[in-house]
Amino acid sequence: MNRLEPPPSILARAKVLVDASLREAVDSLHPGVRHMIRYHMGWVDAAGKPDARGGKAVRPAFAVLSAEAAGADASVAVPGAVAIELVHNFSLLHDDIMDEDRERRHRTTVWALYGVPAGIIAGDALMILAFNVLQRRSGPAGAEASRRLLLDTGGMIAGQVEDLAFEDRPHAIWDECVAMEEHKTAALFSCSACMGAILAEAPRAIVDGLAGFGMHVGLAFQAVDDLLGIWGSPELTGKPTSSDLRQSKKSLPICGALEGGGPGRDELATLLADFRLRGPREAELARAVHLVESGGGRERTETYASDHLRDALEILGGLPITPAAHDAFADLARFLGRRDH
Amino acid sequence: MNRLEPPPSILARAKVLVDASLREAVDSLHPGVRHMIRYHMGWVDAAGKPDARGGKAVRPAFAVLSAEAAGADASVAVPGAVAIELVHNFSLLHDDIMDEDRERRHRTTVWALYGVPAGIIAGDALMILAFNVLQRRSGPAGAEASRRLLLDTGGMIAGQVEDLAFEDRPHAIWDECVAMEEHKTAALFSCSACMGAILAEAPRAIVDGLAGFGMHVGLAFQAVDDLLGIWGSPELTGKPTSSDLRQSKKSLPICGALEGGGPGRDELATLLADFRLRGPREAELARAVHLVESGGGRERTETYASDHLRDALEILGGLPITPAAHDAFADLARFLGRRDH
Repeated sequence: MNRLEPPPSILARAKVLVDASLREAVDSLHPGVRHMIRYHMGWVDAAGKPDARGGKAVRPAFAVLSAEAAGADASVAVPGAVAIELVHNFSLLHDDIMDEDRERRHRTTVWALYGVPAGIIAGDALMILAFNVLQRRSGPAGAEASRRLLLDTGGMIAGQVEDLAFEDRPHAIWDECVAMEEHKTAALFSCSACMGAILAEAPRAIVDGLAGFGMHVGLAFQAVDDLLGIWGSPELTGKPTSSDLRQSKKSLPICGALEGGGPGRDELATLLADFRLRGPREAELARAVHLVESGGGRERTETYASDHLRDALEILGGLPITPAAHDAFADLARFLGRRDH
Repeated sequence: MNRLEPPPSILARAKVLVDASLREAVDSLHPGVRHMIRYHMGWVDAAGKPDARGGKAVRPAFAVLSAEAAGADASVAVPGAVAIELVHNFSLLHDDIMDEDRERRHRTTVWALYGVPAGIIAGDALMILAFNVLQRRSGPAGAEASRRLLLDTGGMIAGQVEDLAFEDRPHAIWDECVAMEEHKTAALFSCSACMGAILAEAPRAIVDGLAGFGMHVGLAFQAVDDLLGIWGSPELTGKPTSSDLRQSKKSLPICGALEGGGPGRDELATLLADFRLRGPREAELARAVHLVESGGGRERTETYASDHLRDALEILGGLPITPAAHDAFADLARFLGRRDH
């Protein structure tokens, strides 16, 4: 991974484009929940003082490029980009409670700061806000955008259901992990990548092509996330070292190693069950990381990520969009497939 | 309250009308969450065996009557009735976690049975399902129905935010409690009462009139709920005696007594603060019930409920709907204003 590669300019551009509408939407919420959302978004610190530590705006960037790819102005994508960013943040708020994560992006999570009831209601408020924002775009394109986001949010929730069930299995299976990540992460990426085109009333072939492109990028993105969950640098990811192993998460590298059938497989399974029961110990954590690597889990996940990145770029190359839009999408996809946090 | 009064036939009729679509919608959910929803709805017991202990279908009944009032067939209301019932049940699932209620309708709540993460995701899945069901009704009426349900669901969530904040105040105020109940309960009643008319493409005057009627019925309904929360019979309500006092909820009778300024006011405030800190004791619970009554909280709430019932019936009487639709709505409103559970 090349840490020196600068992030594609679309990320900063999308953040600026979406920022005012996103803040306006959040400001329309009830004051009793608004301050928690503003904190969660990284706009203020826990004391309410201005801060600037938001996320990467990856999904808004896809939505904006998708409008431009369809020949429309970037502003056409804004309601969709805002709605998707709100849905994404709703899922983070509830996920943090479900996973008992007390830290995200180097900061205390909302439920850990304000309590579980506040975290639940903050997520609920964001989810409804998302669809309220999008339904203001009237006409058939607005209806189609809402329909698409509803469908993919339903998919994302199904992925969270699978994720919950998954954690309880002693032997997780690679294919099940792939299906879970397709729902939990890639569905909303796919939605982002076609959202601007839908709002720009692009032909069906472009909408469907971009949705497929986004699905493959999402799968690659989550695979890289899984790699970072074991080998990522804590200073960059904002999570403890080998955090997915600490939490005995069934991510792709772990499923890969457990399925690989190498000599360390039973030892890894025993270690993971033990971490789950009694919590991880540092020495054994290093051993587990080694076993995932020697069991082929890292290599299989890296290959999987680059395969999906390749598939994404192949679909993209076949779409009747301008070279500028193609290159911006490709740069963003490659950046996400090689990122270090 | 007249326990011998039979429930209006529309309740049973709406349940039958909506049942197949409601089950079909729930059956479309991921298997990992479906069984919990089926349990929550009262269709199966915890072991998965068929059961028949669902709710009263009050909101679907309003939606169905509202289509008929607009001269349409009851079936026109079904997607809206199903969506509202799903939104209502999403709010119950999350409320039970936030209030730490372990029992509802004489049964263990979903989070108490399956854990908090499962309860959160089950609620999320129902909320998205609701809007997925409604968006299948295409055209302007479908869009208007979705817009209306989104708006009122946002209102309901704002009410839950107010409710959470409310519990922490030592001296709750009657008007704030009214505003909270208007959002938390009456908004979705209002939505139900005009939903069928929206889907039937009724004139704006009928839609708005029915929405106003539903709002007043909702306020009366919640006031009766607050009375039952102190003086209701545990066998009928499925809750312990004086349950709202046990939980130091700031309901209308309690706010009324605290605001009444009678001689027992300070004693009541001290008792409630003590229950909140150390839990209630039976002897002091009876004293608190007496203080709410002698402080005028019961009388004020009863007057408030009958005032809103009267306002609802007055609006209803002025609407250009058939006598049959008028009478069915009036019967349902009166029944809810006098119910004992």
